[in-house]
Amino acid sequence: MNVKQIVLAGRPKGLPSKENFRTESLVLPGLQSSEVLIKAKYFSVDPYMRGKMNDVKSYTPPYQVNAPIYGGGIGEIIESESENFQKGDVVKGIIPWATEAVVDSKSLEKIDTTIAPETYFLGILGMPGLTAYFGLLYIGKPNPADTVVISAAAGAVGIVVGQIAKLKACRVVGIAGNEDKIKMLKDELHFDEVINYKTTSDMDKSVKDACPNGVDIFFDNVGGKISDAVIAHINFHARIVLCGQISLYNSTEIPVGPRLQPTLLTKSALMQGFIVGDFQTNFSEGIQQLSQWVKENKLEYKETIIEGFDQLPEAFLGLFSGKNVGKMIVKV
Amino acid sequence: MNVKQIVLAGRPKGLPSKENFRTESLVLPGLQSSEVLIKAKYFSVDPYMRGKMNDVKSYTPPYQVNAPIYGGGIGEIIESESENFQKGDVVKGIIPWATEAVVDSKSLEKIDTTIAPETYFLGILGMPGLTAYFGLLYIGKPNPADTVVISAAAGAVGIVVGQIAKLKACRVVGIAGNEDKIKMLKDELHFDEVINYKTTSDMDKSVKDACPNGVDIFFDNVGGKISDAVIAHINFHARIVLCGQISLYNSTEIPVGPRLQPTLLTKSALMQGFIVGDFQTNFSEGIQQLSQWVKENKLEYKETIIEGFDQLPEAFLGLFSGKNVGKMIVKV
Repeated sequence: MNVKQIVLAGRPKGLPSKENFRTESLVLPGLQSSEVLIKAKYFSVDPYMRGKMNDVKSYTPPYQVNAPIYGGGIGEIIESESENFQKGDVVKGIIPWATEAVVDSKSLEKIDTTIAPETYFLGILGMPGLTAYFGLLYIGKPNPADTVVISAAAGAVGIVVGQIAKLKACRVVGIAGNEDKIKMLKDELHFDEVINYKTTSDMDKSVKDACPNGVDIFFDNVGGKISDAVIAHINFHARIVLCGQISLYNSTEIPVGPRLQPTLLTKSALMQGFIVGDFQTNFSEGIQQLSQWVKENKLEYKETIIEGFDQLPEAFLGLFSGKNVGKMIVKV
Repeated sequence: MNVKQIVLAGRPKGLPSKENFRTESLVLPGLQSSEVLIKAKYFSVDPYMRGKMNDVKSYTPPYQVNAPIYGGGIGEIIESESENFQKGDVVKGIIPWATEAVVDSKSLEKIDTTIAPETYFLGILGMPGLTAYFGLLYIGKPNPADTVVISAAAGAVGIVVGQIAKLKACRVVGIAGNEDKIKMLKDELHFDEVINYKTTSDMDKSVKDACPNGVDIFFDNVGGKISDAVIAHINFHARIVLCGQISLYNSTEIPVGPRLQPTLLTKSALMQGFIVGDFQTNFSEGIQQLSQWVKENKLEYKETIIEGFDQLPEAFLGLFSGKNVGKMIVKV
């Protein structure tokens, strides 16, 4: 059986490149009790994976050099030594970047493809969707007519945040980095205002113009100077939801910027970092509500699907140059 | 009647000086309906007043040039056109820096001097005590055995925060800037660890040594490099309570420092600015609990009382060089 896997060849300094990845062939071991053999169908590539390439303990352990990268994926069961799974079941879980893999069945769950296409379970009905749902509703706590600003608004999380905010009767302002994304946010997802941070000559003025009543909720996926410009316009009792800081993930020195505490202090504002796992006890609520909205066509969904297992590193690297519209997926 | 008042002579750039204040004589007008004439007994000087010297709208309007400074004070009623107050009543409220003043009685409340000495109502039973109470308990949400770090720990708010944290079975670490304060925190208020930020050669190491289990709650009155050192050691799900940023109040340029969002993100940490007014609906609970603790001798209280109305500017300026141990009060 010719199985391929992709390992971390070495830890990147700054922006990763293809040299940080290596494809290997391997022979799979036989199944132990409760294990299954899965054939990979789709992989999710996500910005958080950059943090795991560093040798730093974060909320999860780092990837190991010369060991496979792993992340969210969907596969089909080929062989099963678990009573919970049968040949042919379609499952999702955290799986290695490999065309086939032997994994512990406890880390997998079946997906219900009558609700939505398979890939949705890596996006709007998976980690990014739940991240949007809990970050916006549990931390941002939107009120009708609040102004909600979203950075990386055309990304996997941003498109869901913006649409939920619209469902909650907020004024939604999206920040993105190319005209296709800007057009999609405005024309297809009906955002109230959009800012192309790459073409504006004055980000501060763009935020001010797009938010005449100030910013009540800032859902931040980006960090850096884009965030500085938004935070300069927050309202009293604003909520800043820290979901990602993709502009800083490849920094080789400690990023420096204006100190935010004086602004947070005079505005009685909240800034809260989170990971989706903080809301684990409420996952079923989130999945149920998101599925309902998808079924009712109240949430549109966008994906960028790249074909070919070998394209995994390139797809991942593309996240840092904004190549994805919506969720970035690799189809094996 | 020879009445003196102190007005804002001009707006300071950077650290204020005596030149920003001017003493004037004036003749008071007669009382209108519902007004009272009060003779000032004590004034509170507080770091937040620095912000009101700038021509910037914050959560309250700025002081006006050539108009009296005002702030928390205690006085005795000399004449009353209000049915709620009689000659001889001792009251507190926001009053002008004047030896006597005609004020609207609606801005005053009587104090019960059977509970505690008069000056306590400007401190532990007033705004600083409530600030400590709500900031620590409602934002910090201490759990037993949490490590709580407090900057400006020997200040009016810090001494109350530390003692409440001890009552909640936390490990309490205080940061202060001279040996008398350090000794007081350790010997009299029984803080677990203390750090003199002026004498340590390595603030980062001092925080690490004082907090072997990391920092769960950081109650920050200071900001700047002291805060950077503490925030570098926060735990997962830490709470950073932004109460003050005194090290930055006299900045003439926008202060710059390491970006905090990556740390808050990977630690799922909260940073929340607040003013005591955010908790106005819970004030009676706070005052009742603080009074109870004071009566039971569970909270010790420290004050620095400076005598003489003319000393008001100097007492205020002393806040920025750390001259006060506990609450800074001026006795007329």
